[in-house]
Amino acid sequence: MKRHFDTDLEDLRGRLLRMGGLCEEMVQHAVKVVVERDVSRLAAVQGWERQVNALHIEIDEVCLRLIALHQPAAGDLRLIAAAIKINSDLERVGDQAVNIAETGGYLCKEPLIKLGDIPRMVEVAAGMLKDSLDAFARGDVELARDVIKRDDEEDRLKSQTFNELVTLMQRDASAIQRGMDIILIARNLERIADHATNIAEDVIFMVLGKDIRHSSEEI
Amino acid sequence: MKRHFDTDLEDLRGRLLRMGGLCEEMVQHAVKVVVERDVSRLAAVQGWERQVNALHIEIDEVCLRLIALHQPAAGDLRLIAAAIKINSDLERVGDQAVNIAETGGYLCKEPLIKLGDIPRMVEVAAGMLKDSLDAFARGDVELARDVIKRDDEEDRLKSQTFNELVTLMQRDASAIQRGMDIILIARNLERIADHATNIAEDVIFMVLGKDIRHSSEEI
Repeated sequence: MKRHFDTDLEDLRGRLLRMGGLCEEMVQHAVKVVVERDVSRLAAVQGWERQVNALHIEIDEVCLRLIALHQPAAGDLRLIAAAIKINSDLERVGDQAVNIAETGGYLCKEPLIKLGDIPRMVEVAAGMLKDSLDAFARGDVELARDVIKRDDEEDRLKSQTFNELVTLMQRDASAIQRGMDIILIARNLERIADHATNIAEDVIFMVLGKDIRHSSEEI
Repeated sequence: MKRHFDTDLEDLRGRLLRMGGLCEEMVQHAVKVVVERDVSRLAAVQGWERQVNALHIEIDEVCLRLIALHQPAAGDLRLIAAAIKINSDLERVGDQAVNIAETGGYLCKEPLIKLGDIPRMVEVAAGMLKDSLDAFARGDVELARDVIKRDDEEDRLKSQTFNELVTLMQRDASAIQRGMDIILIARNLERIADHATNIAEDVIFMVLGKDIRHSSEEI
């Protein structure tokens, strides 16, 4: 027979995945403001942010209530602790998506500028976010390790984008403001990848009870 | 008579404040790399980061152990939940300090560039960090509210810095790379202020049991 507590934990997992799904949508749409110059998507991103913020508060409440009511230990406690942290990472992913969409909104009013590696950065960050959430849903340690490995690629793309844009800005002063905006978007994407990495580390801790953060050990 | 649990909670609070103190030192020294062009401080900042990272893992372990052993409720549980979140914010403050020191390291090799509002941004961010930790140490809700209010000033200073530097970069292409570096430092300082704001919000939740995040209510 299923414990009542198991149902509660399922519910918690479900809420977190719903929040994660919203964050994925936010990132996808935010990026379209930039890449497709489709400013109409900005309002949708801002609307989802309100839902994400509501879930942020709600999930924290659920976590504390579950601890107080069920006095969890071992794996159950690690799941709840992971949920508290993933909740906070997802909320910040939502913030980054709003930043991207808003900066994209300014860029739409200006002449087109080369985006360089931004589309590739989007692909890597969105893929990492999706897979970190799948790893959480399935408790999949291998997938979580794979997410963590991909973070280096995103950092490399960000540095490349920085360098290309600085060169462009040095050649064409009229591109400085827009170049800066693209650099900030690259930075937002890099941070989304960082949050996905955090989520993946939390999944590994949740499943194995092993804290691999800050460790140089082979993941 | 003091409960054994109370001693454990005191110990947790102490560790978190030690970590906070290290983060404050890191910020102060990182900023000196930039403002005083004193690159010798970079190694110290990197050394403290290792200590902060070790505490980050240790504090999470302590929190989970306390929950499993003592099955806390109400205020005790809120303290532990706040500790988990403050721990993660402090670790990120440490990361921002390392970023500032490293960017400062590059800048030291280049001709001097006007820092504009950076010293004022440092003052605001460092003050917010200090006061958020004091608010945590004393459970001081008024001080926490005051920290949250100061975040707008930091955001305003950051926007001003951005605008000034873009203008400078447009006038002088040779300043673009350095201008970008200062903008990134401004961004790091803004994020330190954001983390201090998060800590202050956690203190209010810890003391009053009231979640004021994402709320438009008068703080």
